[in-house]
Amino acid sequence: MSQQRHGSTPGEAGDVPAFPDLPEATIARLPEYLRALHHLAEAGAETVSSEGLAAAAGVNSAKLRKDLSHLGSYGTRGVGYDVALLVDQIEYILGLDKNRAVCVVGVGNLGHALAGYAGFASRGFRVVALFDADHGKVGEVINGMAVRHIDDLEAVAEQESIAIGVIATPPTAAQAVADLLVAVGVTSILNFAPCVLSVPPNVDVRKVDLAIELQILSFHEHRKASLTALPGGVGGSAGDQEAVGS
Amino acid sequence: MSQQRHGSTPGEAGDVPAFPDLPEATIARLPEYLRALHHLAEAGAETVSSEGLAAAAGVNSAKLRKDLSHLGSYGTRGVGYDVALLVDQIEYILGLDKNRAVCVVGVGNLGHALAGYAGFASRGFRVVALFDADHGKVGEVINGMAVRHIDDLEAVAEQESIAIGVIATPPTAAQAVADLLVAVGVTSILNFAPCVLSVPPNVDVRKVDLAIELQILSFHEHRKASLTALPGGVGGSAGDQEAVGS
Repeated sequence: MSQQRHGSTPGEAGDVPAFPDLPEATIARLPEYLRALHHLAEAGAETVSSEGLAAAAGVNSAKLRKDLSHLGSYGTRGVGYDVALLVDQIEYILGLDKNRAVCVVGVGNLGHALAGYAGFASRGFRVVALFDADHGKVGEVINGMAVRHIDDLEAVAEQESIAIGVIATPPTAAQAVADLLVAVGVTSILNFAPCVLSVPPNVDVRKVDLAIELQILSFHEHRKASLTALPGGVGGSAGDQEAVGS
Repeated sequence: MSQQRHGSTPGEAGDVPAFPDLPEATIARLPEYLRALHHLAEAGAETVSSEGLAAAAGVNSAKLRKDLSHLGSYGTRGVGYDVALLVDQIEYILGLDKNRAVCVVGVGNLGHALAGYAGFASRGFRVVALFDADHGKVGEVINGMAVRHIDDLEAVAEQESIAIGVIATPPTAAQAVADLLVAVGVTSILNFAPCVLSVPPNVDVRKVDLAIELQILSFHEHRKASLTALPGGVGGSAGDQEAVGS
């Protein structure tokens, strides 16, 4: 975290419910608010209006106020939100005070990019291990870490308390890697392989499929082209513009 | 596309409305259905039940039927959906018949991974150009393409009819690159830099922020830990399990 803490422990940070039942869309926006709040804090801001924070995070302010109300944060009329307090609340809810250990499985181009991604360390994560099934890649040093063989996963997972496994293998290997991660007790997986993984119900999977992102953009290109082709010019939008950018 | 077409032009493919007004969540699931349909077609399937397709795409079948009803696709009772017809309909809606040209700006590790990503070509896209602002990287050949200087963007964008720009630069450079892309007429941007971009209303931006994906998983780790810490064990879920994996 690039923001200094203010001595308060997260448990004391306002009236946060024991554990709020948040809509999935709200959960996905909390990291955006957090990033904007860190920038505000670095710039010296102590408070921020809902409009100011909404603009910095790229959402509308009514949505932001509703999201933050789920955390028990309502701001102060005429003053806005306390930046440091809100940072503590969001980091607590997201569990970022834990500095969770991450491993990357598959060190092709994407695995290299992930291993060297500077943004992880400053945002609550430590990449602690890199794995590959290819003996030719084992021992290669990436960003100061030597690639290990996937057979070492069990020992390393226990030793490093790996919380999140990132799968950056070809799709044909992804399910087997997911099974291995689950077997050693990893309950959160970020999957970059373009395939659907089967996991037990207690395991959370998030998926990033780069081609799917392009296909969604392609839909909007197609929609824009067909709208401008209509006699009346640009018509109704096919969705919430904000959702497109989020 | 790895699937052969059946002679019908997309405009004839069933009763697709001129351009359906689709919910954003439906748009995001269409590429998942398409990927599952391509696998089914490769395996020789000519029809598929809603349950079978839903399982292959990792969603529930009621949601799938509702999504496809937006396209005017209801399947045939006792038979299911015609695989080839549904592929045509979804590819038409997503505008994938256009084989859109994509450029990648920023050829660090992530840009390298994107330039070499085999999944693009088979799914409706051509990476036609790579750009960087660093003269030291200009001329480097990645996946058979020479990196060009960002100053060449305007000429190349016109020549190659670039439809989608992918930003893989550091966050400090991302807004300037977005401005350049917009200035040369690109109206769809996929942004990997962890920052919010300002673009005109006719430009669609999708964002992939790797740390945000980890932070959302961290929330679920935190939630699971707090639920198992309660006297009653696992309690209510904080959201739709399916949404987590999508």
